[in-house]
Amino acid sequence: MPQRSPLDLPEGDPFGPHNLPYGVFTTPHAPHLRRIGVRYGSHVLDAGAAAAATASPYAELLGAATLNPLMAAGRPAWQAVRAEVLDWLTNPAHRPTIEPLMHPLTTLALHLPIEVADYVDFYASEHHAANVGRMFRPDGDALTPNWKHLPIGYHGRAGTVLVSGTPIVRPQGQHLPPAPDPSAASSSPAHTSSPAPVFGPSLRLDFEAEVAFVVGAPSPLNTPVPLSGFHDHVFGLCLLNDWSARDIQSWEYRPLGPFLGKSFATSLAAWITPLEALAPARTAPPARDVPLLPYLDDSAAEPFGFDLRIEVAVNGHTISRPLFSAMYWTAAQQLAHMTVNGASLRTGDVFASGTVSGPRPTERGCLLELSWGGRDQVRLGDDTRTFLEDGDEVTLTAWAPGPHGARIGLGEVSGHVVPATP
Amino acid sequence: MPQRSPLDLPEGDPFGPHNLPYGVFTTPHAPHLRRIGVRYGSHVLDAGAAAAATASPYAELLGAATLNPLMAAGRPAWQAVRAEVLDWLTNPAHRPTIEPLMHPLTTLALHLPIEVADYVDFYASEHHAANVGRMFRPDGDALTPNWKHLPIGYHGRAGTVLVSGTPIVRPQGQHLPPAPDPSAASSSPAHTSSPAPVFGPSLRLDFEAEVAFVVGAPSPLNTPVPLSGFHDHVFGLCLLNDWSARDIQSWEYRPLGPFLGKSFATSLAAWITPLEALAPARTAPPARDVPLLPYLDDSAAEPFGFDLRIEVAVNGHTISRPLFSAMYWTAAQQLAHMTVNGASLRTGDVFASGTVSGPRPTERGCLLELSWGGRDQVRLGDDTRTFLEDGDEVTLTAWAPGPHGARIGLGEVSGHVVPATP
Repeated sequence: MPQRSPLDLPEGDPFGPHNLPYGVFTTPHAPHLRRIGVRYGSHVLDAGAAAAATASPYAELLGAATLNPLMAAGRPAWQAVRAEVLDWLTNPAHRPTIEPLMHPLTTLALHLPIEVADYVDFYASEHHAANVGRMFRPDGDALTPNWKHLPIGYHGRAGTVLVSGTPIVRPQGQHLPPAPDPSAASSSPAHTSSPAPVFGPSLRLDFEAEVAFVVGAPSPLNTPVPLSGFHDHVFGLCLLNDWSARDIQSWEYRPLGPFLGKSFATSLAAWITPLEALAPARTAPPARDVPLLPYLDDSAAEPFGFDLRIEVAVNGHTISRPLFSAMYWTAAQQLAHMTVNGASLRTGDVFASGTVSGPRPTERGCLLELSWGGRDQVRLGDDTRTFLEDGDEVTLTAWAPGPHGARIGLGEVSGHVVPATP
Repeated sequence: MPQRSPLDLPEGDPFGPHNLPYGVFTTPHAPHLRRIGVRYGSHVLDAGAAAAATASPYAELLGAATLNPLMAAGRPAWQAVRAEVLDWLTNPAHRPTIEPLMHPLTTLALHLPIEVADYVDFYASEHHAANVGRMFRPDGDALTPNWKHLPIGYHGRAGTVLVSGTPIVRPQGQHLPPAPDPSAASSSPAHTSSPAPVFGPSLRLDFEAEVAFVVGAPSPLNTPVPLSGFHDHVFGLCLLNDWSARDIQSWEYRPLGPFLGKSFATSLAAWITPLEALAPARTAPPARDVPLLPYLDDSAAEPFGFDLRIEVAVNGHTISRPLFSAMYWTAAQQLAHMTVNGASLRTGDVFASGTVSGPRPTERGCLLELSWGGRDQVRLGDDTRTFLEDGDEVTLTAWAPGPHGARIGLGEVSGHVVPATP
């Protein structure tokens, strides 16, 4: 039986000609030579080598060790490079040149595809924010008064954004001891009024299923980016797992927000899907409940939501199917908000959606919600979890509708938990 | 009268041979050629040229366009380079070579001396945190329950860290309208219960006098840096102004912390003083009120505080003299905390102290405290302020005790406020 060419994809492959995500790989023969690749089916095109072999005007951009030079080149270059890559992969005239430059995905090491500049994490799912609010502030409003007026966000640690597959060492830190047995409360009244923290491995390690947007073209200081500038500045998107140590976070976060509960690791997919590939997935966001200030008002704008169907699996068991289309705040609004005070954008800035949770319990994007703060057991086949245990592997996958019924697959984000360093 | 050599400093110059801070400059003749300089009195040594002229083994590190390669080289290299620079400046044998490489400071343009990796801002002054707590939570405890157990911090925007002298455009953003006149309250009861934000230039623009520490030697993931590792990882320190839009911040910060109220601009001094220069300024921090967990316990450690005398001037009028020696949390504790969860350090990471406020009203490091939330007028000669007005110039200066009664000057941080972009 003749072996099929890597350029002949099975019908409906989610990494087909409508997708063409970019990543950075090395081969076992040259483990220090990072190269830009384009995923096509179960193979990866060495894009730098293809550009050199075809005397492409983009050989320098595609010959880099990260996507940053290509991302910085701006939207016309993104469109031209994408058209050229499509031609390489689908035009039979290129087949003799291109076929030898296709590597089986399984033979490659994948690296962080971008050099991250600033990393911002938003909080854009109303369902997630309301669930967290109900758990943490049971006597108050589920949402803070600002929530429907602006996309709440905070800066995270860019230096610990890691590529999918990197093991996640359980973080250690300060947290309050688990709540004492109520029957023993009378024996330690002082303890309940003003507990002292303990130090140790996080006992409430969680994932957060998110979507990250990657800034390509920078913007100058004091020049806000309007909603309409979204497609000129954002290069692409990918899945992100915002690992969270809930016990560390809940002790530290007042009044200045999350810090060590998040900064130990954030996993980014190895493949960045260009926004252009997701044009068929664009959808209107949910109806807005309050009038928005003009810089955020998208009522008359093109639809800036994306219909991404995410799946969360722990140890191979699907435990949730968050719907990105249910997100209240869009990435275009987040970009406009992030720059409205005059803050500049740099190539490599990453901003993530916050936990993607839909309205239904089966659509919640983190264990905090799925276990309702540890109260309920989440089923994993015959096993159960409230939070992650050592050895657990979390995998996020997603697809979006493409043209003519095709699916656009997003690169997975996976990571397994290893025990805390002694 | 013969002109004095730039190598002959007046007695007691705060930028004398015990100081030797590093910066990056350009000359008018070569405005794109960034070079490393060492400030000496009112002149700057072209350190790259000096290294080349003396065939120094550090010519490559000193020939870079930022301090990052030198910072990454580690403490033994820092010590060797500092000794060599001191020899160039003070050994008469070098005078014919070095004197022509001294530029008058006033003829140079100064640039951001480092490429910032991650930027973290702490909240380490008990007096500042307590004052803010009393203003914002008048019915609660001044400090949150975690405050004395861990150094509270959050990540800020690295991409908008700007060199001293960069004009600060007044940021725009969402904030709540000023509190209505109480006599008119009955006419708009809905407004007081659930106010909607307005958009416009910040009405409560403030400075924060801080000290920033710059990481030189990186650390790997999952390898906490103990208190004793402070001097191996931290290259130096400098003044920092954490410009803050209080009205934007107070509306946005719940529950995830400051974001746009801070991210428009952070001003960093042009000169980084090596930690070694500040050895005589080391001092014990205040007594601790609660037992600290072992990784933060500095009761038996060398003294990690620094005796820095800061002065804040607005439009030339000194309005405050914050004492850095009063800070509750030291930079060594901050570094240990920041990495205890396994987060890595990168060359160019900057972590700032938070507003430096001493116990006395004349030692408060921001207008929020000095005007007590806008209630009191702060005198500037014949003028007064509650918050900053367009055209105001804020200048932070500082000195530390050096050897034998000498003073070690820190490079100033200044910035003037320009009107919001229409």
